[in-house]
Amino acid sequence: MSKPAGSSGGFSRFRIDFSYDGTDFAGWAKQPTLRTVQGEMLKALTKIFGEDKNDFGMRVAGRTDAGVHALAQVCHFDLTPAQLKRAGRSKITAKRLQTMLTQEIVISNLVEVSHDFDARFSAIGRSYRYLIADRSTKKSPLTSRYVLWVLNDLDTELMQSAADVLVGLHDFGAFCKPREGATTIRELRKLTITRSENQIEVYLEADAFCRNQVRAIVGALIAVGGKKLSIPELATILKGKTRVSAFKVVAPHGLALTSVEYPSDDQLAAQAEKARRLRSPEEISV
Amino acid sequence: MSKPAGSSGGFSRFRIDFSYDGTDFAGWAKQPTLRTVQGEMLKALTKIFGEDKNDFGMRVAGRTDAGVHALAQVCHFDLTPAQLKRAGRSKITAKRLQTMLTQEIVISNLVEVSHDFDARFSAIGRSYRYLIADRSTKKSPLTSRYVLWVLNDLDTELMQSAADVLVGLHDFGAFCKPREGATTIRELRKLTITRSENQIEVYLEADAFCRNQVRAIVGALIAVGGKKLSIPELATILKGKTRVSAFKVVAPHGLALTSVEYPSDDQLAAQAEKARRLRSPEEISV
Repeated sequence: MSKPAGSSGGFSRFRIDFSYDGTDFAGWAKQPTLRTVQGEMLKALTKIFGEDKNDFGMRVAGRTDAGVHALAQVCHFDLTPAQLKRAGRSKITAKRLQTMLTQEIVISNLVEVSHDFDARFSAIGRSYRYLIADRSTKKSPLTSRYVLWVLNDLDTELMQSAADVLVGLHDFGAFCKPREGATTIRELRKLTITRSENQIEVYLEADAFCRNQVRAIVGALIAVGGKKLSIPELATILKGKTRVSAFKVVAPHGLALTSVEYPSDDQLAAQAEKARRLRSPEEISV
Repeated sequence: MSKPAGSSGGFSRFRIDFSYDGTDFAGWAKQPTLRTVQGEMLKALTKIFGEDKNDFGMRVAGRTDAGVHALAQVCHFDLTPAQLKRAGRSKITAKRLQTMLTQEIVISNLVEVSHDFDARFSAIGRSYRYLIADRSTKKSPLTSRYVLWVLNDLDTELMQSAADVLVGLHDFGAFCKPREGATTIRELRKLTITRSENQIEVYLEADAFCRNQVRAIVGALIAVGGKKLSIPELATILKGKTRVSAFKVVAPHGLALTSVEYPSDDQLAAQAEKARRLRSPEEISV
């Protein structure tokens, strides 16, 4: 691992591994009036280190929309030598940060890292899961905040066949909220549907996702599983590269970020440089 | 199974099996101004069958306090021939009732039963679980509504030894909120403590529980596990039969009713008669 630069006089960078229940947050990104996950994190950091005009340079691996959860989220933030001195390096711990947050956000790890690490731009993979309960799924009120209930039955074998059409390197324009100048080409590495007694899990893995992509893909799979959309129709929609009304962007509460993948330490800086060239600042929200 | 009496001209009795997330309810029992589980169920029944002055004679197996959950709750309600006619017998289904409730309450079954069945008085056993996360437990924001977090580490082997002292037929006066004329003698059949990576589960099984009993027992076990109370001290407290300040009644959100046991059909009436003689109306809340 590279030597943390903070020790050589510049700023110090910290990585936080954390998770959250997104139900009562207006998403990750800080907003002037709404309660957001980043807003709560910044409030906690401000209590420890004082005000910071640049929001401690905080960046997150997967910007989640309102109501979306995260089981393994990653962000980084930077401290100046003065801020570090004020807090005392030994007191910058996961435990201390946790005491300033509700149990909706759980801090699992907080460590100093190299400047080469960028929570967002160094990431080479992200995975999400979307949970569904169809008519024959055994439902529980203790998970209903995390599972989309649909009234009909879904054919999960059909859904898997549809998923196989979507896997690969494609222009996902038909599934993304368009943004000026941003590419919608992504490599969907894995897309599996698994049914158990208590849920149907849609699992997705990609280099990155464009805005709304996961929830639009799940909407399309539900349409296929409910026999409202055929697999050839789905293939045509994918090729069309523009948004259609044949399926819905499903509700956010079924969705959770499940992991973020980073390259080995010597590849962190190169990956960050590459990703910065490819993606616009707002592009990776889901 | 006895023949449902509804078919012979008297009232008809229905059994509902259901579960709920108690977080945003002021407990099971109907209250004039607060939102309760029974209140929501009665509202739904009223929509189907019209107003009923006696609240459809509804009774529940385990009256839960504010914030307590239920994974396998049972209640019954009665319909007159006129109410039955208004609704249409074939339309009295779990699915229909579910459409009138939020996903905080899940109806898993609704069937007509014999008059001998009484959800509360026919029950011969109830079990509860209480979930705890201590310092070394891996915490998740997606279960924090159902798990009590404690800051220190708990010695679960010590807790099991303490549990073994409490198991059996005892006067649990030291653990019950006293009620005029009500017995506090209960048979605690099982009390086990199981640690896994994500939680410590306290599991309790008894004929019935008196008010606050489960949460007081868990409070005592946490005191023992945190080495603030010794096992001989706990034994002395049990023998004393009066409430003490050596432990707390823990928060409700860690608690859930997990099952209710009924005897075979030919024993239902006899059991109900026996229980009615033993217990006061308010006694079985936890």
